[in-house]
Amino acid sequence: MKIGFIGLGIMGKPMSKNLLKAGYSLVVTDFNQDAVKDVVAAGAVAAANSKEVAAQVDVVITMLPNSPHVKSAVLGENGVLEGAKPGLVLIDMSSIAPLASREIYTELEKQGIEMLDAPVSGGEPKAIDGTLSVMVGGKKEVFDKYYDVMKAMAGSVVYTGDIGAGNVTKLANQVIVALNIAAMSEALMLATKAGVNPELVYQAIRGGLAGSTVLDAKAPMVLDRNFKPGFRIDLHIKDLANALDTSHGVGAYLPLTASVMEMMQALKIAGDGQLDHSALARYYERLANTEITRD
Amino acid sequence: MKIGFIGLGIMGKPMSKNLLKAGYSLVVTDFNQDAVKDVVAAGAVAAANSKEVAAQVDVVITMLPNSPHVKSAVLGENGVLEGAKPGLVLIDMSSIAPLASREIYTELEKQGIEMLDAPVSGGEPKAIDGTLSVMVGGKKEVFDKYYDVMKAMAGSVVYTGDIGAGNVTKLANQVIVALNIAAMSEALMLATKAGVNPELVYQAIRGGLAGSTVLDAKAPMVLDRNFKPGFRIDLHIKDLANALDTSHGVGAYLPLTASVMEMMQALKIAGDGQLDHSALARYYERLANTEITRD
Repeated sequence: MKIGFIGLGIMGKPMSKNLLKAGYSLVVTDFNQDAVKDVVAAGAVAAANSKEVAAQVDVVITMLPNSPHVKSAVLGENGVLEGAKPGLVLIDMSSIAPLASREIYTELEKQGIEMLDAPVSGGEPKAIDGTLSVMVGGKKEVFDKYYDVMKAMAGSVVYTGDIGAGNVTKLANQVIVALNIAAMSEALMLATKAGVNPELVYQAIRGGLAGSTVLDAKAPMVLDRNFKPGFRIDLHIKDLANALDTSHGVGAYLPLTASVMEMMQALKIAGDGQLDHSALARYYERLANTEITRD
Repeated sequence: MKIGFIGLGIMGKPMSKNLLKAGYSLVVTDFNQDAVKDVVAAGAVAAANSKEVAAQVDVVITMLPNSPHVKSAVLGENGVLEGAKPGLVLIDMSSIAPLASREIYTELEKQGIEMLDAPVSGGEPKAIDGTLSVMVGGKKEVFDKYYDVMKAMAGSVVYTGDIGAGNVTKLANQVIVALNIAAMSEALMLATKAGVNPELVYQAIRGGLAGSTVLDAKAPMVLDRNFKPGFRIDLHIKDLANALDTSHGVGAYLPLTASVMEMMQALKIAGDGQLDHSALARYYERLANTEITRD
């Protein structure tokens, strides 16, 4: 099977290399020519643009920053749709708004092109290891046919429903992660200001109902003052903005998600957008003029 | 060692029985005479009030609803302080405001009486099984001396710092639990309104960074429409009110905790105060006029 890969960024580059390792032929494109050269050195063929990628392959994978980039690469000038052969399938692995996934699919469907929305979680380390989690929306038979392609980049590939369901699932994930980080921040700030060692509080509560993957992954980072990403506040703002846009479109109301997005915006404006999202704790620290530390 | 036990409610009754099973002699009191008879039948001796309990024992355990009840039972008329022999120790296992713990200790210390604040988590089932988690504040040597007494009712007994630290830790725990339930509710409502099966979303994300003990314990309850407590909204409101009072007293600001407390208040006013705290999801359901269900 010949695969096209559009978008060789922090995530796309290692993902495309894992497809090469799994024995797939790859045609790739990106504005960043250094990234293209790197993946070509690993065995891929370069194409000038998305249209030329699509013309040479059976399935196109996109891994781009957000909804407008995917719309442009697929539906725009020199895009996938212009070059697509009949029967081409698009697997969009970008994290974008579910409504955008549905809009793109509506256009593709008219031309007989199937699509899966298949965003990932796990970040750069899991992209390199090929152990990402993929959440997939689209027709079940299309999912089944391309399961092995996605599995070559992932530890788990889960079907969650019709087109857009993959991105809805990803956004639900990001809402929980953001609010669980805020929960941890409020709890540890309360402890700190009340004169109780936040490290002891973390250890005392982690085994009970307050326990979470966020608490175990992020409380030590805050206590150590280590905000190296991980997952950047900038990117989490993008996901929460998509969650709120989506929720308003479908009639769900997410007041706490909106509050946390505003906190993250405040941090971004203060210059912390490149820090790990656990730096949400710094919002509370600024308010209370106190650091949550191990000491 | 002779132990006094004041407060034989849903938690206190099984806790006192576990002390009897462990071989301790018990003197008990409660306004509810049925509860007193029940524990006397199990081997305890009844006393008319807290003063008479204190006069007969080496250590007094209190397990009462909130700060005013503990203050009254300890410092009030016919209270522990009036009956206390020199060297008596108070172990307050109620969940109360940490500042109240410190105020009570200040009065006791003047009379040479030591105190631990030792709130528990785990609810009625773990009180019955003797597997509660106990978070303890006070002098370390007092903690060490009475560790075995607390362990007779608990799976874990953790020292967290000076007097009040036990209740600070408990409040930190309750802040995280409340916000993690809200996080789950926002995520599953987003999925539901976007037309994606919330059960599939839960299964897809539970193994990743969004995973938590709350998600695994409470998402199935929401999906099954089973809001039998567990831990009641009424009681969680009490704990969050203590968290906010404490935070304002020490200069920490907990805006999301305040929001969730208001959501819980709205549910209480609507008649849902007796439901499990997972019924926080119903706040979102009312707003969106949609239930989060498995079907």
